Amino acid sequence: MKACGVVVEYNPFHNGHHYHLIKSKEKAGADCMIAVMSGNFLQRGEPAIMDKWHRASAALQAGADLVLELPYIFAVQHSDYFSKGAVLTLAAAGVEAICFGSEIGEIEPFITAWENFKSKKSTYDETVRNYLNRGFSFPEASRYGYESIGLAEGKMDLSKPNNILGYSYVKQILAINPSIEPLTIARTNSQYHDKSINGNIASATSIRRELLEHGTLTEKASHTLPVITQEKLSEYQRKTGKWHRWEDYFQLLQYRILTSKEQDLRRIHGVDEGLEYRLKRTMRQSSNYQDFMDRLKTKRYTWTRLQRALVHILTGTTKEDARPLLDEPSLPYIRVLGMNQRGQSYLNQAKKTLEVPLLTQPQQLDHPLLEAEARASIAYYSILKDTHRIPAYQREYKAPVIIHS
Amino acid sequence: MKACGVVVEYNPFHNGHHYHLIKSKEKAGADCMIAVMSGNFLQRGEPAIMDKWHRASAALQAGADLVLELPYIFAVQHSDYFSKGAVLTLAAAGVEAICFGSEIGEIEPFITAWENFKSKKSTYDETVRNYLNRGFSFPEASRYGYESIGLAEGKMDLSKPNNILGYSYVKQILAINPSIEPLTIARTNSQYHDKSINGNIASATSIRRELLEHGTLTEKASHTLPVITQEKLSEYQRKTGKWHRWEDYFQLLQYRILTSKEQDLRRIHGVDEGLEYRLKRTMRQSSNYQDFMDRLKTKRYTWTRLQRALVHILTGTTKEDARPLLDEPSLPYIRVLGMNQRGQSYLNQAKKTLEVPLLTQPQQLDHPLLEAEARASIAYYSILKDTHRIPAYQREYKAPVIIHS
Repeated sequence: MKACGVVVEYNPFHNGHHYHLIKSKEKAGADCMIAVMSGNFLQRGEPAIMDKWHRASAALQAGADLVLELPYIFAVQHSDYFSKGAVLTLAAAGVEAICFGSEIGEIEPFITAWENFKSKKSTYDETVRNYLNRGFSFPEASRYGYESIGLAEGKMDLSKPNNILGYSYVKQILAINPSIEPLTIARTNSQYHDKSINGNIASATSIRRELLEHGTLTEKASHTLPVITQEKLSEYQRKTGKWHRWEDYFQLLQYRILTSKEQDLRRIHGVDEGLEYRLKRTMRQSSNYQDFMDRLKTKRYTWTRLQRALVHILTGTTKEDARPLLDEPSLPYIRVLGMNQRGQSYLNQAKKTLEVPLLTQPQQLDHPLLEAEARASIAYYSILKDTHRIPAYQREYKAPVIIHS
Repeated sequence: MKACGVVVEYNPFHNGHHYHLIKSKEKAGADCMIAVMSGNFLQRGEPAIMDKWHRASAALQAGADLVLELPYIFAVQHSDYFSKGAVLTLAAAGVEAICFGSEIGEIEPFITAWENFKSKKSTYDETVRNYLNRGFSFPEASRYGYESIGLAEGKMDLSKPNNILGYSYVKQILAINPSIEPLTIARTNSQYHDKSINGNIASATSIRRELLEHGTLTEKASHTLPVITQEKLSEYQRKTGKWHRWEDYFQLLQYRILTSKEQDLRRIHGVDEGLEYRLKRTMRQSSNYQDFMDRLKTKRYTWTRLQRALVHILTGTTKEDARPLLDEPSLPYIRVLGMNQRGQSYLNQAKKTLEVPLLTQPQQLDHPLLEAEARASIAYYSILKDTHRIPAYQREYKAPVIIHS
């Protein structure tokens, strides 16, 4: 069986994701589609609208054959580490290709860009350093860096966030296992960051906005989602009374920041350059999450960077926890969140040659990556009432989602 | 003006407290009654049923002239440190006498007991050590220790919890400032630990039980409380929707314990002898506070000792925070929670000779004791909804309660 990997968040799984899965399968000529998915917290430092089990379940009933967990430590990171974790997971699972969506829809410019970048890296690095020293945020400094080496123009414009992500995947594939074929398919009309919904393909951002604003599955949102996602969203909301959003965590975040000493906040991954003082000072004046973020944000600290640090505060993830794990050249395990029958057959065949343990339950291995995962799970569900929270905690230690289709 | 001090929790202020204030004033021949009161968390490791401002306000309208805060670090401690903090506060405020309630109602046996104890301390220490090594809790081992030197019989039975407390006061007075006169008055019929209410004098424990069980001011409870306490209880419940109890903090406690690493829990004051492992293991199986405590308790870890450790977990109070503060020979400030006109006159007169700053707002001084106080306040109110929580946090930094009577 030939497997093709995709890197996803499915927050939630929508028609665009469905299209991407079908096209990727076709392009790769694959028998089995493996998705490596962020767990309960996402790359941009946000809680997922519903938990990983419900998101995996929707994906498995709509085109994915196997869903693997992107470990928390890699999931809530900037694109370099995020991509590293994702590619390491897919490589460990034995995929022959990885296919991502991009505006260009061709793979060569990504590879050429990487070759170009390598040869001009010192110019890029120097430019970035200069802009950082002048108080610019990393994404901004990086944009100037790409401009300085001619990679911010034409087809392969690395000042665009989606291109950066695809470029990161290609970079990691070439570094980790060059025998994996990088593939890309053209994204349909909707932009990743689009805020409004038009038609039946929309960005996850715009769909979440619509769902959270109305607190219910509006007709507009429904048009953009497979029926199974609609069912899972309703089921989750019915069971827990929630679709998760940052604002729900404000009470806990306020408690956590205001009962922490500065030196403890400084130990947290992502709390750098005196942010610990700013966090405490700002929190004392803030009355809700939006208000807090509006006060906290500066030219230097981007919204996303701050949000990631806040997630690490909630989960108690320190620099000491994260750094050594991020720098490992391989993963100690791969964890299955769910599979259908094709995914199961693939694993039965592949597991003879896997180089790391395949976990179906986290208690099968004792590892700091899994401890961080458990803390993330505790933090994510902590806002639910006792009757929903305790079963949700226990779910973490049970068998994966299995779809008999 | 002659001031007499009392050591109190007023959780809540009841008819017995009122009786104690009047009798103490009479006995001491005092003009001004100064209460040193625990803040939002109490000696037995519990949240106060309503906050310190409402409790202070009731006390000031029912017989106390000045209410000083017993710093959190001393308030949530076993009787030795609790008494030390209380006596240091009252001594710093310039009281000439301290009057406590006891079963005996005479002061001599307490002083004699302390003389006896000093001369036989080595026998006591050895007995306690033996029993601790055999797995007994400290209160039990201590009881055997007192038996071994003949202090667990007759009038001055130091195996009784109230006698231990009175004895601690006397010990601290003699150590800190022997010119302060220790006084005691006989407690009326109700026992400190009584669980049911009979008549209009009842233990605070039985009153809280009655209030929390019914969630409202029952007729039975009302009989035991001055009208002003009834008003303050109703006001607090109307404003915040709460009378605080441990069960309300279970969600937060569960989050805090399960997102902490063992090595972080071990840093917490009161988490000793491997309790960190037991806390995490037990919490994973528990579905509410009562359930958690029932599973957690052992012969060695008494309920009270565990509760204190849990409060320190909620407030993030480490051994490193607490130890140096507990061992200081004096306090860096005294803090006023509230006063009536007599209290105000007393302070106006006394402040010329006070040896430490008199704080009416915590921001007047930068000190680790006050940082711990602020964290305790954050933790205490953290369970309230945004609309009540944020004003409650701000209250901490405003002026004391002033009663114009």
